[in-house]
Amino acid sequence: MKLTSQTDTIIALATPPGEGGLSVIRVSGPESLRIASRGFQGKAALSDALTHTAHFGRFVGENGSLLDEVVAVVFRGPHSYTGEDTVELSCHGGILVSKRMIEALVHYGARLALPGEFTKRAFLNGKLDLSQAEAVADLIHSKSEAAHRSSLAQLEGALSSRVQKLRNQLLEAVSLFELELDFAEEGYEFTNKPEVKQNLANAINEIKLLCSTYDVGRNYREGIKVVLVGAPNAGKSSLLNALLNDNRAIVTEIAGTTRDVIEEQISLNGLLFRIVDTAGLRQASDVIEQEGIRRTLVQAGTGDILLLVIDISRNPDEAEKSSILDFMNHKSPPGAIKIAALNKLDLVPGLNGEIRERTRFLGDIPTVKLSALTMAGFEDLKDLLTRSAGGKASSEGGVTITNIRHFQALQKSAANLEMALASLQQRKSGEFVAVDLRMALDSLGEITGEVTTDEILNNIFSKFCIGK
Amino acid sequence: MKLTSQTDTIIALATPPGEGGLSVIRVSGPESLRIASRGFQGKAALSDALTHTAHFGRFVGENGSLLDEVVAVVFRGPHSYTGEDTVELSCHGGILVSKRMIEALVHYGARLALPGEFTKRAFLNGKLDLSQAEAVADLIHSKSEAAHRSSLAQLEGALSSRVQKLRNQLLEAVSLFELELDFAEEGYEFTNKPEVKQNLANAINEIKLLCSTYDVGRNYREGIKVVLVGAPNAGKSSLLNALLNDNRAIVTEIAGTTRDVIEEQISLNGLLFRIVDTAGLRQASDVIEQEGIRRTLVQAGTGDILLLVIDISRNPDEAEKSSILDFMNHKSPPGAIKIAALNKLDLVPGLNGEIRERTRFLGDIPTVKLSALTMAGFEDLKDLLTRSAGGKASSEGGVTITNIRHFQALQKSAANLEMALASLQQRKSGEFVAVDLRMALDSLGEITGEVTTDEILNNIFSKFCIGK
Repeated sequence: MKLTSQTDTIIALATPPGEGGLSVIRVSGPESLRIASRGFQGKAALSDALTHTAHFGRFVGENGSLLDEVVAVVFRGPHSYTGEDTVELSCHGGILVSKRMIEALVHYGARLALPGEFTKRAFLNGKLDLSQAEAVADLIHSKSEAAHRSSLAQLEGALSSRVQKLRNQLLEAVSLFELELDFAEEGYEFTNKPEVKQNLANAINEIKLLCSTYDVGRNYREGIKVVLVGAPNAGKSSLLNALLNDNRAIVTEIAGTTRDVIEEQISLNGLLFRIVDTAGLRQASDVIEQEGIRRTLVQAGTGDILLLVIDISRNPDEAEKSSILDFMNHKSPPGAIKIAALNKLDLVPGLNGEIRERTRFLGDIPTVKLSALTMAGFEDLKDLLTRSAGGKASSEGGVTITNIRHFQALQKSAANLEMALASLQQRKSGEFVAVDLRMALDSLGEITGEVTTDEILNNIFSKFCIGK
Repeated sequence: MKLTSQTDTIIALATPPGEGGLSVIRVSGPESLRIASRGFQGKAALSDALTHTAHFGRFVGENGSLLDEVVAVVFRGPHSYTGEDTVELSCHGGILVSKRMIEALVHYGARLALPGEFTKRAFLNGKLDLSQAEAVADLIHSKSEAAHRSSLAQLEGALSSRVQKLRNQLLEAVSLFELELDFAEEGYEFTNKPEVKQNLANAINEIKLLCSTYDVGRNYREGIKVVLVGAPNAGKSSLLNALLNDNRAIVTEIAGTTRDVIEEQISLNGLLFRIVDTAGLRQASDVIEQEGIRRTLVQAGTGDILLLVIDISRNPDEAEKSSILDFMNHKSPPGAIKIAALNKLDLVPGLNGEIRERTRFLGDIPTVKLSALTMAGFEDLKDLLTRSAGGKASSEGGVTITNIRHFQALQKSAANLEMALASLQQRKSGEFVAVDLRMALDSLGEITGEVTTDEILNNIFSKFCIGK
């Protein structure tokens, strides 16, 4: 399947849509030079251009009218992103210009590319394996330095080479088992059982180590969800705003993120946090308030970190204490990390004993004293959030699993290896062992795309943007 | 001033911000190759690269960490957009990737470019004149084919060569006048007065012809404002929606346009229309309604076309007729074109005599019978709107004035030429004529930037986007 040759030539806008200095239209496929040549008028013909050369010229539409002045960069296959002949046309930025250019190129014989089709061709032509192709999309969507770093490592083949090494080890074992089966009647035995068992146990162990990076890896990609919880007027919104203002540059630069009314994204020490403000916690008296609290509980139920915001400028009353304790102990998800932010420190400077007294009911959860007004204590808060999110020790030999598809394939592979190991220990026939090993190999092969189906490919590439 | 040499090297994201297949970072200036080389790791050193060649490589940050895999395209001055050494780095699309790349390039010695600074350098280095530079921004922001066509013509120098021709004619005349002044005491006369007068009259005439394209040219750029006016329930909103739906492809593709609640942009026959819905016209009884009608009047007061929407399925009552007539005759701006859309034709098929009777009070303004429900008559409406906007006969020898700066410079120039002509006719001293001619020349020179000031330049380029 990897050798499917693509006979048509595809085009798409490769740069984000919108107004900017320039836009790039990518044309890839066997006819790309001929198709681009039909509109291109430069000093030399594009069809004679050497690979990796840039050419200035006019680009005209089907009726000969000028569409733009462009620079065409020619890449001859296999020395291109897709592995095919490719022309990248840099035209002036702007929505209409690129629209007209694309229409003309379609008229000249190209087909609009499907989402991810350039990268899919790169995969089919052996320029990238599947985990590398997936890293391209992750890289584009990365919103934190940790996500950026892990997707780059994956693009450069860190996961691929790890998986390849595991596969090679297992491939050796499975070949020997299969050979043994062929010679079963002769009673030959090629597989040194104790050594094989040890190898399998090592492989299982290594796969599980990789799997253990997934929780953090998922956080890299999706961000760590922090839910702000606290009594009304404890200062949740001020705290959120203070965090946002402090990160203004980063927040505004991540222009592509969807921001709804309650969730804000910030990057702290290279990690992405999604911070959700909620309704104040208290005994609800009316229906609207009850609904607010119900939603708070729903949000809190999916949070990675619960940040309890407590006003320490006054003594919390029993009702407040009990609603916070009730929430902490009974209504928050078991895995969530709890942190208390003791807010309004500016109103009670130096009252450390007092504060300790007022917050004794919280028990031993980590606390930070701060003021959303003066920003005192915010560095501590950020450090605590970052540490709680498991910032650093998150990769296994440079590899972090960020993708659920990889995680599931690794888990399947480990499960099959465990079955193979059990069969060996139970001295079952080599056939059982060989089948399980083969399945474990296939699961690993799914990660890099050595083993794949059209369904898997379509599922992966349909999530790409058009033009990639 | 045009020869100012730029000593620093600037960078910016040249493609629209956002997520896409790729982003391009442009580096321009004397140090651009050295600066890009500091991060670039490829087969060959960028600093040795020939002009117009593309190079694949890794790009690393200041601490050696990988930031992205990139393609660097090298353009050596003067064979680049700016005329300086330039490197265009294609990296993966995505906000964080390009942010990190730009940070690294700043660390390596580049400075963030100001808005329009690349194009300003192209102007200062003589790659473009000023009207061509302005065309670049117009091209990027063009939202209709007419705007696209006229900005391309301007980019290719249609206006420049026209202005240059005028300047050359006048330059000849002014030189002779100035020569004559030098030899005034000797009584030489180089200027053949009748011929000079004829030349000046021709130049004035030509400039006025150019000026006459401005109304249409401005419409190309800014769009033609159509205000929908009519009684409540006449079907204004349905008509607007029907127009929008019919143009869905175009509307959704102009993604960069700001759409507030009442103004929608559509492109009809290559022209941009901005269609504004308003409150229904009637005798207002309460304060909120009065405010709605006041706003309708404000909108209508700035409309190029008033589209009166009238429900012809019933006989308009006297109050309705009188409010429409009052509006048409007293409250609409003098220059606005009025068109009546006779809506709900589907409810009264074949009742032509009836319809004529019901709309007799409108007098002889152009009318279109249509149905926002069945879309009957919409082609007629679109044709009428396009014709009313003066679609075709809008250029003067291929030149359309779209920019108020050019329009004002042309007007100033014509005024000075008229003064020169009057001085000639009144047989005033040649000095007067020469001064006026010189001022006319300077005004023309402002268009192409032969004569300019820092203020003009800053004003022009500060309106560009960053990265252009």
